[in-house]
Amino acid sequence: MAARKTLYLGTFVHSKSLAELEFLHDGAVFVNESGAIVAIEESCDEAKAKKEIFSRLGWAETDVDIVRAKNGQFFFPGFIDTHIHASQYPNAGIFGQSTLLDWLNTYTFPLEASLADPAKARRVYSRVVRRTLAHGTTCAAYYATIDAASTNLLADLCFAAGQRALIGRVCMDQLSPDYYRDASPEAVMAATRQTIDHIRAVDPQMEIVRPIITPRFAPACSIDLMRQLANLANEQNLPIQTHISENVNEIALVKSLFPPSATGAAPSEDNGQDATSYAAVYDAAGLLTERTILAHAVHLTEGEARLVARRGAKVSHCPCSNSALGSGAARVRWFLDRGIGCSLGSDVSGGYSPSVLEAARAAVLVSRHVAQGAAAAGRAAQEEADRQKLSVKEVLYLATRGGAEAVGLAPKVGGFEVGMEWDAQLVGLCAVGEDGEVEGTENGGGGDDGNVDVFGWESWPDRIAKWVYTGDDRNTKKVWVKGRLVHERK
Amino acid sequence: MAARKTLYLGTFVHSKSLAELEFLHDGAVFVNESGAIVAIEESCDEAKAKKEIFSRLGWAETDVDIVRAKNGQFFFPGFIDTHIHASQYPNAGIFGQSTLLDWLNTYTFPLEASLADPAKARRVYSRVVRRTLAHGTTCAAYYATIDAASTNLLADLCFAAGQRALIGRVCMDQLSPDYYRDASPEAVMAATRQTIDHIRAVDPQMEIVRPIITPRFAPACSIDLMRQLANLANEQNLPIQTHISENVNEIALVKSLFPPSATGAAPSEDNGQDATSYAAVYDAAGLLTERTILAHAVHLTEGEARLVARRGAKVSHCPCSNSALGSGAARVRWFLDRGIGCSLGSDVSGGYSPSVLEAARAAVLVSRHVAQGAAAAGRAAQEEADRQKLSVKEVLYLATRGGAEAVGLAPKVGGFEVGMEWDAQLVGLCAVGEDGEVEGTENGGGGDDGNVDVFGWESWPDRIAKWVYTGDDRNTKKVWVKGRLVHERK
Repeated sequence: MAARKTLYLGTFVHSKSLAELEFLHDGAVFVNESGAIVAIEESCDEAKAKKEIFSRLGWAETDVDIVRAKNGQFFFPGFIDTHIHASQYPNAGIFGQSTLLDWLNTYTFPLEASLADPAKARRVYSRVVRRTLAHGTTCAAYYATIDAASTNLLADLCFAAGQRALIGRVCMDQLSPDYYRDASPEAVMAATRQTIDHIRAVDPQMEIVRPIITPRFAPACSIDLMRQLANLANEQNLPIQTHISENVNEIALVKSLFPPSATGAAPSEDNGQDATSYAAVYDAAGLLTERTILAHAVHLTEGEARLVARRGAKVSHCPCSNSALGSGAARVRWFLDRGIGCSLGSDVSGGYSPSVLEAARAAVLVSRHVAQGAAAAGRAAQEEADRQKLSVKEVLYLATRGGAEAVGLAPKVGGFEVGMEWDAQLVGLCAVGEDGEVEGTENGGGGDDGNVDVFGWESWPDRIAKWVYTGDDRNTKKVWVKGRLVHERK
Repeated sequence: MAARKTLYLGTFVHSKSLAELEFLHDGAVFVNESGAIVAIEESCDEAKAKKEIFSRLGWAETDVDIVRAKNGQFFFPGFIDTHIHASQYPNAGIFGQSTLLDWLNTYTFPLEASLADPAKARRVYSRVVRRTLAHGTTCAAYYATIDAASTNLLADLCFAAGQRALIGRVCMDQLSPDYYRDASPEAVMAATRQTIDHIRAVDPQMEIVRPIITPRFAPACSIDLMRQLANLANEQNLPIQTHISENVNEIALVKSLFPPSATGAAPSEDNGQDATSYAAVYDAAGLLTERTILAHAVHLTEGEARLVARRGAKVSHCPCSNSALGSGAARVRWFLDRGIGCSLGSDVSGGYSPSVLEAARAAVLVSRHVAQGAAAAGRAAQEEADRQKLSVKEVLYLATRGGAEAVGLAPKVGGFEVGMEWDAQLVGLCAVGEDGEVEGTENGGGGDDGNVDVFGWESWPDRIAKWVYTGDDRNTKKVWVKGRLVHERK
């Protein structure tokens, strides 16, 4: 499975910053056997690469594979999904008319509990890993279930498929149904340690799969459990993921479940003088860290935002889920203005799609509803309301660089720079011929290039916009993680 | 091109009403050479159909083709797109950060004007017709451009491809750029008559293509022009399409352009005592009729809603466009409560996708933002806010029956009933095997069945929900209009 040295030639597109999407045409990227980018050259064709760069790198031509982006195709960093429930995948698109809390009881808990069946877990998890790779997801922060054995299976499948993954054994010792609840904090800790040990055994360097400490969300966890999990994460320097402030009823529930007498929290400057907020509860338990991913954060208060920003926890914005469950529309610009790092989550199956491209599109659309809401409520002048809108390049930043920050891989993946690793996808759009038919040949011949019709006169930024608005997995032709080819579209 | 008698066997799904999606399993639908449904039988296999029904219909076996929905597939009525700008298709997904009025000037008018080039028009329109058919659109209400020749070309292409279409030559004699504006009302009327004559010559019965009177929107039309167009539509009993109340700046513009002194309108019970509203302007011109399709209607007042309902005009709800252009979120439940007929429009390229399935999905999602907005603004109690949410079956009604009402084909298409015509699609989802891989064989073998993963335990309503939330053109295997096969997925 070891990769060979590889020279990638063609157009490269990636985020330099939230404000800048960089286009490198006629570029060359040199990736070594370990999947690391060792050189990037502009205006460099195959001849020049071989003549000038190979010798500089000490590469012999016979040791190097060459991958070319065809005309119109481009390389883009792999997507990072910072919030996805692998175990809920079969329910994607099934909501009825429910909202968060009844949706959990009606659809979610029964399905998650059923994955204690290893054959069913293998079937579902295999499908999720295949699907997400096909959508260009090179790294995902997964929630599995409370079952340790099938959580370990998810880790095995990700490792075998070569998908970077944070694997979370779900922890929940209260308020869920009898048939799907941890017996005690002690039972949780034992099961969690079991998955950590398993993952270390599978991938000792933890370069592909890593454990992530996963208290489901405050209502389903005792304060004692949350404290023990925080300590474990701290001891072993592990990432943490949970949900926060998705839904107003959930927030009210947290307030009633965790009075200051239970958490021991006192009003302070850090928690905005509110010791009973959702964020303050997590903070009192020690769960708000730089390694923490908080999904949703739709209804955070100013005080909570300050607290989250101070602790350096990152938000996973899940716009598909915001809309589908009707929980509210998260204010991403508001997060960014307050110095909170943001990323994108598919939130399957609160979100209906395992595609981060779909999440990026939805992030653009939901931000427009945020802007409309702000203007309609008179909370903001038109100019300020318009500022709430996210651009195509901003959501692509969230889907790559923002994701890398959230999962703790920021120096390693999310863009194309020397020293980073080659987690990437090759994207091809659909070229419309002069007769209005598809020119199947340009992008590989005869295959289905999807719905992004390019007429040829579009600028590169417009092509990228078309991809974000109308693209799907058909446009993701190949996917690599750490230099290894992990998906190829037939 | 004449169709043969055809027997369709398998599962049929269609809307009986807004509240009811009907499932007919092991059904048989008998369609004659003219594309009319002459019999529908429950629990009827091929043997029974041949033995009992053929003789009743006087059919000979040798004259009949048989089309079977495979296990898991189903027949569904063709989609009806009640608002699509064929001429804007190349801009799908290109918005920048614009809103309606600057978007028109920056992106839209230059592209529309350029389609006076017949080669470019042929290329673009060919692509649109192909794409929309592939998405299951059996009938579309198209806006072309102000150019009569290329508008006629669009009619020719729809007729040749067999797609039912209402073809609108766009009329606009004021306030648009010099390079893209009609010279005078007289010039408009001459060009419009030219397209009507052409379409009558192409399809004398007007069963596939029909002209539709298309004043672009009030700001771009003089009151004189609107009156002449209304008279023409009235004389020839033609449908009418235009835009209304999409954006708050547009509404203010209409108010300033059309004072009562210009329209001659006076406050009345009909117009809710407001002679200066957007709807009152159209009504004063005679454009509000039972045959009128009004796109958007995002910001209608109570008085306008009453006026639209009284006149029997129908709304084309364009949720993708609502979100993408940030114009606002149309209140579909509010329309329905007021007795206004509703349908769905893709609104390419204010909408980013030519898919009515995408519009249906977006209608579900946008309705949840309407509900959130109502609850957040304290305009409604939670229960009333929740009523704003549209269900999967409701949006499918809008996409089929509601569309048929809007385009004036309600007794003919939109469902499966004896006496209706066979405008339908065959839908196949993706069956997940026991090993988590795709069972390519179930739905036709080896092809790409798209992203709707069915594990096998899902109820039929859940399968339909999965299709609406995660489906795309890959699920539309075959499409028929009036019994003729007009699209087949390879």
